Amino acid sequence: MKTQETENPLVHEDESLDDLLKGKLKIIQKKKGYRFSLDAILLAHFVIVAPGENVFDLGAGSAIIPLLLSARTRAGKITGLEVQDEMADMARRSVSLNHLDRRIEIIGGDVRRIQAIQDAARYDVVTCNPPYRKPGSGRTNPEMQKAIARHELKGSLEDFMAAASYLLKPLGRFYLIYKARRMTGLFSALRGAGIEAKRMRLVHSKAGSEGEFVLMEGIKGGGEEMKVLPALIIYERDGAYTPEMQGIFDEVAGDV
Amino acid sequence: MKTQETENPLVHEDESLDDLLKGKLKIIQKKKGYRFSLDAILLAHFVIVAPGENVFDLGAGSAIIPLLLSARTRAGKITGLEVQDEMADMARRSVSLNHLDRRIEIIGGDVRRIQAIQDAARYDVVTCNPPYRKPGSGRTNPEMQKAIARHELKGSLEDFMAAASYLLKPLGRFYLIYKARRMTGLFSALRGAGIEAKRMRLVHSKAGSEGEFVLMEGIKGGGEEMKVLPALIIYERDGAYTPEMQGIFDEVAGDV
Repeated sequence: MKTQETENPLVHEDESLDDLLKGKLKIIQKKKGYRFSLDAILLAHFVIVAPGENVFDLGAGSAIIPLLLSARTRAGKITGLEVQDEMADMARRSVSLNHLDRRIEIIGGDVRRIQAIQDAARYDVVTCNPPYRKPGSGRTNPEMQKAIARHELKGSLEDFMAAASYLLKPLGRFYLIYKARRMTGLFSALRGAGIEAKRMRLVHSKAGSEGEFVLMEGIKGGGEEMKVLPALIIYERDGAYTPEMQGIFDEVAGDV
Repeated sequence: MKTQETENPLVHEDESLDDLLKGKLKIIQKKKGYRFSLDAILLAHFVIVAPGENVFDLGAGSAIIPLLLSARTRAGKITGLEVQDEMADMARRSVSLNHLDRRIEIIGGDVRRIQAIQDAARYDVVTCNPPYRKPGSGRTNPEMQKAIARHELKGSLEDFMAAASYLLKPLGRFYLIYKARRMTGLFSALRGAGIEAKRMRLVHSKAGSEGEFVLMEGIKGGGEEMKVLPALIIYERDGAYTPEMQGIFDEVAGDV
């Protein structure tokens, strides 16, 4: 990912303008504060969107998922929901900067109030890179921004799942990345929201290491029985990316 | 596994006497009907038993798990419950043949009636290789025997979990192998029985293939958060066992 010093009026002083897909896309991010990471790339790669399907991204942050999906898929409209006004504003400027205003819309709001914001059962696909951590604390402004993106301050996993289920059409697909260590909570929240796990992939940092993330596809009102894909390994023993992980970077985001 | 033609009076005509651990242990199995398979070996290898801990095996079948654990661990008493009288009788003869009557006891009974059979909260460890399939049919006798061992005719997953939870001391450990495709049901049944998933390992037939089994350690009344171990791969591309799988055979059961 190349960070550019820029005079672009859409980019504020405390922000950087970064390349995605070798410059085919650009994304504005805070210099300090929340910046997208590996999990967003992994999720964007795992998601399957058929041409024309509409997508809703819960907790869009910098709009990294909507931006990557706009390039990677032939999705129709992609809508992102972001609770932090400043982040939502920054995400909108990224969308404009890429001339994607007709495909991507970023709306402000809280997942816990989704019923006041959107109609039910309108989306084919919902994506979500939810906060993983139990509420902690953050004192300064960039720390608070990171905290909201990473901790469960503005909605628990159950809140995100309930919102996903509300937004999805019957048999609509839900995609999420989550901490492998919290998999019991994930399965339980999925069932609770009426979304059945259908395809799962564990992500391990190295071949012999503990599972770090779990990628999950669920189907709203789907039948029992799921598919467990082979594990994805990120690093070789020497610390280089595995060929598969390098392939995912190249395909999804370019040199990151 | 070497099958022997034997005149041992403990072995009936329709049964074979097979070696485990290069002959250190012997097991009686039906020539036709249910015979133990890879999943029992995988489970016996996954189970951790501290010296002196007592173990209860739910659905003991031929007593393969009690027999392997008696050799592999320093468990105190190992009790197996088997619903089929003929199987329980055969399992008892295997125990006698190995002179393990003081360490292993096979009792007859149905997991759904565990409260009438055993006191609550007396066991450190419960193991279970439950039936994986929804009820089907079996017409002849060996087919019916296989059907009971493999299908949910004499207890659902929830019944097995409820029995495990009843038998375990607080913070006692539960070990089970199950079909990876039915993992949602597994997580849901675990939570329902008050057993928290703590350590999980997926088993794939080959490196690029779908997950086949899931090995699970749960703790009765345990806290949230679990560990996902690296996947276990059974076969190399050429169909030979992987070194890890070969090592498990050698360690747990000998040449099988």
